[in-house]
Amino acid sequence: MAELKELTPRSVDYSQWYQDLVIKADMAENSAVRGCMVIKPYGYAIWEKMQAELDRMFKETGHQNAYFPLFIPKSFLSKEAAHVEGFAKECAVVTHYRLKADSEGKGVVVDPAAKLEEELIVRPTSETIIWSTYKNWIQSYRDLPLLINQWANVVRWEMRTRLFLRTAEFLWQEGHTAHATESEALAETKQMLEVYASFAENFMAMPVVKGVKSPNERFAGAVETFCIEGLMQDGKALQAGTSHFLGQNFAKAFDVTFATKEGNRDYVWATSWGVSTRLIGALIMCHSDDNGLVLPPKLAPYQVVIVPIYRSEEQLAQIDGKVAEIVRKLRALGVSVKYDNNDNKKPGWKFAEYELKGVPVRLALGARDLDNGTIEIARRDTLTKETRSIENIEAYVKALLDEIQDNIYQKAFNFRTSVTRTVDSYEEFKVEIEKGGFLLAHWDGTPETEELIKAETKATIRCIPLEGDKTPGKCMVTGKPSAQRVYFARAY
Amino acid sequence: MAELKELTPRSVDYSQWYQDLVIKADMAENSAVRGCMVIKPYGYAIWEKMQAELDRMFKETGHQNAYFPLFIPKSFLSKEAAHVEGFAKECAVVTHYRLKADSEGKGVVVDPAAKLEEELIVRPTSETIIWSTYKNWIQSYRDLPLLINQWANVVRWEMRTRLFLRTAEFLWQEGHTAHATESEALAETKQMLEVYASFAENFMAMPVVKGVKSPNERFAGAVETFCIEGLMQDGKALQAGTSHFLGQNFAKAFDVTFATKEGNRDYVWATSWGVSTRLIGALIMCHSDDNGLVLPPKLAPYQVVIVPIYRSEEQLAQIDGKVAEIVRKLRALGVSVKYDNNDNKKPGWKFAEYELKGVPVRLALGARDLDNGTIEIARRDTLTKETRSIENIEAYVKALLDEIQDNIYQKAFNFRTSVTRTVDSYEEFKVEIEKGGFLLAHWDGTPETEELIKAETKATIRCIPLEGDKTPGKCMVTGKPSAQRVYFARAY
Repeated sequence: MAELKELTPRSVDYSQWYQDLVIKADMAENSAVRGCMVIKPYGYAIWEKMQAELDRMFKETGHQNAYFPLFIPKSFLSKEAAHVEGFAKECAVVTHYRLKADSEGKGVVVDPAAKLEEELIVRPTSETIIWSTYKNWIQSYRDLPLLINQWANVVRWEMRTRLFLRTAEFLWQEGHTAHATESEALAETKQMLEVYASFAENFMAMPVVKGVKSPNERFAGAVETFCIEGLMQDGKALQAGTSHFLGQNFAKAFDVTFATKEGNRDYVWATSWGVSTRLIGALIMCHSDDNGLVLPPKLAPYQVVIVPIYRSEEQLAQIDGKVAEIVRKLRALGVSVKYDNNDNKKPGWKFAEYELKGVPVRLALGARDLDNGTIEIARRDTLTKETRSIENIEAYVKALLDEIQDNIYQKAFNFRTSVTRTVDSYEEFKVEIEKGGFLLAHWDGTPETEELIKAETKATIRCIPLEGDKTPGKCMVTGKPSAQRVYFARAY
Repeated sequence: MAELKELTPRSVDYSQWYQDLVIKADMAENSAVRGCMVIKPYGYAIWEKMQAELDRMFKETGHQNAYFPLFIPKSFLSKEAAHVEGFAKECAVVTHYRLKADSEGKGVVVDPAAKLEEELIVRPTSETIIWSTYKNWIQSYRDLPLLINQWANVVRWEMRTRLFLRTAEFLWQEGHTAHATESEALAETKQMLEVYASFAENFMAMPVVKGVKSPNERFAGAVETFCIEGLMQDGKALQAGTSHFLGQNFAKAFDVTFATKEGNRDYVWATSWGVSTRLIGALIMCHSDDNGLVLPPKLAPYQVVIVPIYRSEEQLAQIDGKVAEIVRKLRALGVSVKYDNNDNKKPGWKFAEYELKGVPVRLALGARDLDNGTIEIARRDTLTKETRSIENIEAYVKALLDEIQDNIYQKAFNFRTSVTRTVDSYEEFKVEIEKGGFLLAHWDGTPETEELIKAETKATIRCIPLEGDKTPGKCMVTGKPSAQRVYFARAY
């Protein structure tokens, strides 16, 4: 059990616990390239599960996938005024297209003769290259709506990076849609917010608040940014997905007009929306514990692991036979299962390893179990175990996985509820924010007040919630009118 | 039928026919960035089908997916001597990490203060960054084999590009495996060649020759490169996939050693293997005709399209009802189907459109069919149609799709056979190469002779085949001994 001891407890140093866990559970590691991570097979398997579900949801809502270039001509970034402010700053710039042998013939140097006429930016997001393309795809209302998603890598030259949460290169999907009317584009923006919220709650087992960003936190180039916000176990919020209503900003920047049904020409209405490998960081921080990962069954690379307990080759052969039957029946029920009969590792090592890896259910089968017709079944979420009849164990496991999925969600929901408070005075706010969690408070709607609060308390407005209490009040700082309480928190 | 007339016939200009078809069938287009393409939804849907099958095959052979950085430190490229020769030349170089507003405040310029200490190369292939990572992952024989695949974008600064066939950025998968023994690594290399050949023949319906590259055509850094070679309708060959036995070259370059079972230390043995979006170009050129795409049912975005023929709303409503039943039954059989009851387009337009798009089977249902209990069924591969009883049409369509898949393969196989000849003299070779196709000829095994042939005839050695006649002979150029005939062709 040596590995477990080395995981820093959350209560000692939450940040170190996260770092330890990502590394020790073989999720990801830092690479030789500053700020870029290597996503290891176990971490990538979770991303594949996320992708499969999201992709299905996107297609069910009428979207198609496509692929646009990695590079963006530098001039494109400047075409939308707010966008350039937000994205042109920290990005990777390609200036040359050739290397040549150095004078000593040992290494390579950049060939100064191979300088690009216009520099290329590695996409930090693809609105500009995509809207320059849409200009040719959209002529008439018959070409609308255009509902496209892209799975891609993007690069933002972040100075302080953390595995999954903030990396220079990350993987994501970005939806980019074009519509004939404002209301249709707004409906799309909200639909995709619902898709994200549904994915977060039903697959990640992570409760989220749905809301609108304040102007300060809005996407560069958007008219309105909708978001889902999760709450981590250390009381900090994490933005888990955004859906932007872009108005006609990008259509105007790239001159994308269409012939309306009525025979006029109008600019197209746009949305964009994305989630990234950051979700893996959220998944880890929302559920895991001092023993390792706790994965919701719906996203676990394998849902069940079976470990044989034996003293002889004969016993192992008998157990192998019984397990083959259980594996077959579990797979027939759609349950993914790994049988670890690796002879190089002891059962205790395996137990610790799969606990660390967050496998939702562990079955252990020994020679005595074979005699008694029993099997040991352990839950990762509650760390409890019981010995049951092996009869019809498959159906029991299947039902247990659903129960674990629900339980993990409920635990996160209860935690969030317990640390979400309404606060009425700024004095109280300053005390409460130190304890973490969401604070629902009144705000006068101005960027100045928001900035003051952020400067003094490190708390930001996570969102103006779409649901819940909408009673007006007075700003806790200025006393000016406030339309409704908003969510404040310190955030990742 | 305006679109069809605009497709240049293959006999007039094969190259223009390909270009026309890729554009008109909405597969891909050139982007605003030189050499980079936009893969449109219809083209991307084919790539998704390819990915799904290949990914399944990789996983069934024990591989896991992971993700490594987009960027490679410049110095890494020089670590393997042959590799730097092959890959360091034409690549995108990131030199800066920030832009800033220009002096007029209108655009952005590269911030000279944000110059990278070491330039980063956008990966042209990932051996170097991956082997620098494997160094930390591999300590003992227990860590081997390491069987990893990556789905990613790569960039090679090609000067002359063609959609799908040769683009600056393309999508691919790259497998990178590490083994304890030479024989195990060689077995892996050959296994993946078989996976590629099986995919090409069983899914793409494209017969391929399996072979070994001559040293001139070998991957930069490989000990041996295995390949599959397809033959296009214009008689030119196309390399469709490669699997490299890398020996200990990369292990030595990145100092990756392991403790053997016997307690010694040894360098690790490596393979790498990849296929790319180039396969989409091969798919198009292998089967399509002057009317448009011909897609094998196993990779078609949808296998069946249903077009209603009606004169009134009432008729359409009746047809809609009947079609809903057919669609449901087809889907239950695992057949993908699109019902196009768009009222803005006439049936003739739709027929031409789906012919262009290569949908394998088209069903047309009219009011008279409803009375007669019949349906019209058209095959894309043979351009034939018949009217049949609608009774149990689903099973008929299902069987027909299999027949079409086989027929497309057989047609390509027969064509290849008809243009594959053995040639004994260089004089004959020079005449025959002008007619296209594969020429099986004797070669003395030297790079000099290969280069001479290439310079004089534009033909290259596609591969030294693994199967078929292995009778030794004399080189057609020098008369020196030849171990076996090799495949020559002009190639893409």
